[in-house]
Amino acid sequence: MSKLFMFEKPLGMRDTLPELHDMKARVRGAIAEEVTKWGYERIATPTLEFYETVGQSSAILDQQLFKLLDQEGNTLVLRPDMTAPIARIAASTLKESQRPLRLTYDAPVFRAQQREGGRPAEFEQIGSELIGDATSSGDAEIIALMTSSMKEAGLEAYQVAVGHIGFVNALLEEVLGHPERTAVFRRYLYEKNYVGFRKAVEELSLSSIDKKRLTALLRLKGDASVIQEAKKLVASKEGIAALKQLEELVAILEQYELMDQTILDLNLVMHMSYYTGVVFEAYSRGLGSPVGSGGRYDQLLGQFDHAEPATGFGLRLDKLTEALGKSTTAGTKDLCLVYSANRRKEALGAAEKARNEGRNVVMQDVSGVRDVDRFTGEFQEVVYFIGSNGNGGAR
Amino acid sequence: MSKLFMFEKPLGMRDTLPELHDMKARVRGAIAEEVTKWGYERIATPTLEFYETVGQSSAILDQQLFKLLDQEGNTLVLRPDMTAPIARIAASTLKESQRPLRLTYDAPVFRAQQREGGRPAEFEQIGSELIGDATSSGDAEIIALMTSSMKEAGLEAYQVAVGHIGFVNALLEEVLGHPERTAVFRRYLYEKNYVGFRKAVEELSLSSIDKKRLTALLRLKGDASVIQEAKKLVASKEGIAALKQLEELVAILEQYELMDQTILDLNLVMHMSYYTGVVFEAYSRGLGSPVGSGGRYDQLLGQFDHAEPATGFGLRLDKLTEALGKSTTAGTKDLCLVYSANRRKEALGAAEKARNEGRNVVMQDVSGVRDVDRFTGEFQEVVYFIGSNGNGGAR
Repeated sequence: MSKLFMFEKPLGMRDTLPELHDMKARVRGAIAEEVTKWGYERIATPTLEFYETVGQSSAILDQQLFKLLDQEGNTLVLRPDMTAPIARIAASTLKESQRPLRLTYDAPVFRAQQREGGRPAEFEQIGSELIGDATSSGDAEIIALMTSSMKEAGLEAYQVAVGHIGFVNALLEEVLGHPERTAVFRRYLYEKNYVGFRKAVEELSLSSIDKKRLTALLRLKGDASVIQEAKKLVASKEGIAALKQLEELVAILEQYELMDQTILDLNLVMHMSYYTGVVFEAYSRGLGSPVGSGGRYDQLLGQFDHAEPATGFGLRLDKLTEALGKSTTAGTKDLCLVYSANRRKEALGAAEKARNEGRNVVMQDVSGVRDVDRFTGEFQEVVYFIGSNGNGGAR
Repeated sequence: MSKLFMFEKPLGMRDTLPELHDMKARVRGAIAEEVTKWGYERIATPTLEFYETVGQSSAILDQQLFKLLDQEGNTLVLRPDMTAPIARIAASTLKESQRPLRLTYDAPVFRAQQREGGRPAEFEQIGSELIGDATSSGDAEIIALMTSSMKEAGLEAYQVAVGHIGFVNALLEEVLGHPERTAVFRRYLYEKNYVGFRKAVEELSLSSIDKKRLTALLRLKGDASVIQEAKKLVASKEGIAALKQLEELVAILEQYELMDQTILDLNLVMHMSYYTGVVFEAYSRGLGSPVGSGGRYDQLLGQFDHAEPATGFGLRLDKLTEALGKSTTAGTKDLCLVYSANRRKEALGAAEKARNEGRNVVMQDVSGVRDVDRFTGEFQEVVYFIGSNGNGGAR
């Protein structure tokens, strides 16, 4: 094996050591319990999917896909998100299941990175999808479940920014007309490049009124009153409908008592191109990037020949644990029983008893350890079953 | 999207629907609890590794590896097993950790399949590795932990077949001499092709005594007495040492009270070429293939420049759930609250109360469901918050 590569991992690939693993397991377990209480059912999909189906529906940039060829020459991808595979199942195996369908998952997704030291190329996403329900109650339930999941995960200070991609699109189209130009401005918003957005507005040959309509969009961030401001900017049926949906949503989130943690952000544009309505991002204090996001995607299922409305969220487990910070409980190991061959049987009995009492017990043959003092030094309690018969001697 | 492919998955790739997912989660949780009680620490490794490191160490046939190129032109593989990645970590990040090191994992592994309808190309493996302990106590601990894991998973009738690859190699080398011939016979044993083995023995130009030594190997299956039979067949230092280790192991497994579930199988040859000592396979009644396997691999860590003894097991989650059969508890959904907009707030309060009492509660806006009778028909209990105020009306 080449020395150069011996311990290396591919770009963006990480190991998870015990302390972080335990923390992830606690978060995963807490969220799983919560989504189950909300009646969501768990499914899993394969790591590899066809490029032609899930790969192309996923809306992840082609250069971010891990691609490979199978033996028949089909292009496969490592799933870049979970929404497209769930849409595939909802439109095929679960086609006949009752609607609305409430599904949840917890799985790694894969996005190839271009350079070292940056983002992970594999990260675990925990999410839920509500399929076949077009109501604002559905949008609110998904946001409430995401919020509840963050709370159960242990986050203390978090906020959800809520927008509506239909409103953004309506305003841009009303002012800018053709789709190429709207795409440029949508991209500035996606990148949160407001300087670039303003500069591009300046350079347009538009009336000063229309220019003001576009730059006013950037200020539509705050409490529910921004919806009233937004109403002054759009006239199209789509724009007005989008704002009506937001009003309904806010009313329901008030019933959930979630408006204290909610901010309206009407220029929010999401990464995934399949969103069609309400969109949202979840933030935790002290973390620069979102811990989760989601929204309504009423067109995606149609790509699998089974058009129906849907909404969902995904939380990133790596961001959640980052937000929670270093675990405080991990570290010390519990009980170690060190034994010699003659007293192994005795040690076995003691181990079984302690395990039944709920303790974590390492058993160690003294002849299998090089430095018994250093080894046992990591445990809270050590009992020796060595030498002449008698009771185990505690350290 | 091409109609042909719309709902297809790559060869050997499977979805996991809620009922099976719940069953897997129960098994996974039960085993995780047990291995934690035995003091094993959880780690995770990336899905993608370099071909040059983990890919080549894994001992999986090259044609079974899923390979792809990264942007620098390095060949990557989807990990075909977990033992090689753990060896990589043990020899690098955890190089300075105290030995013996007790690690556990639960992860999908990937093996490309050649034809439809056969084996899964992705399956979840749950396993534990004991690194840095050369004693028979270590071998026994790993077998005992695997057995205990199967028991906690809910298996009722299972058996562990125990052999020693060092004994098989010693006998074959004593009789056959050069390595090409021993490899041919080892392969017959790996494939459990005893007819082929006998025929190949017939065709050898050997003394009838040597031929009998080889065919006698096939009968070395049963209780501890086969070790005495085996002693008559080998004379080399390696062969004798291997049998001595098996005797020690049997004595310890008696102390664990596991000999009732153990069968000695001295012609057991494992898939993974890195095994060096005691090897074993776990069977469940009614299942044709093993639910798990493992053994000692004292040379693998040396490939990562950190030679040390090691032993471990891996259980296949798909085989465990297959052995357990269809879950009996799954099926009916718990409580559904159907509400109209006016009484949503009331329904929210009822949902929170029921969830706090440990129930799984689906909330459904009546305007979001097409056929409310069919939808609610799947629940044990349904409460309506619709129309005029008052108490929720139970169905």
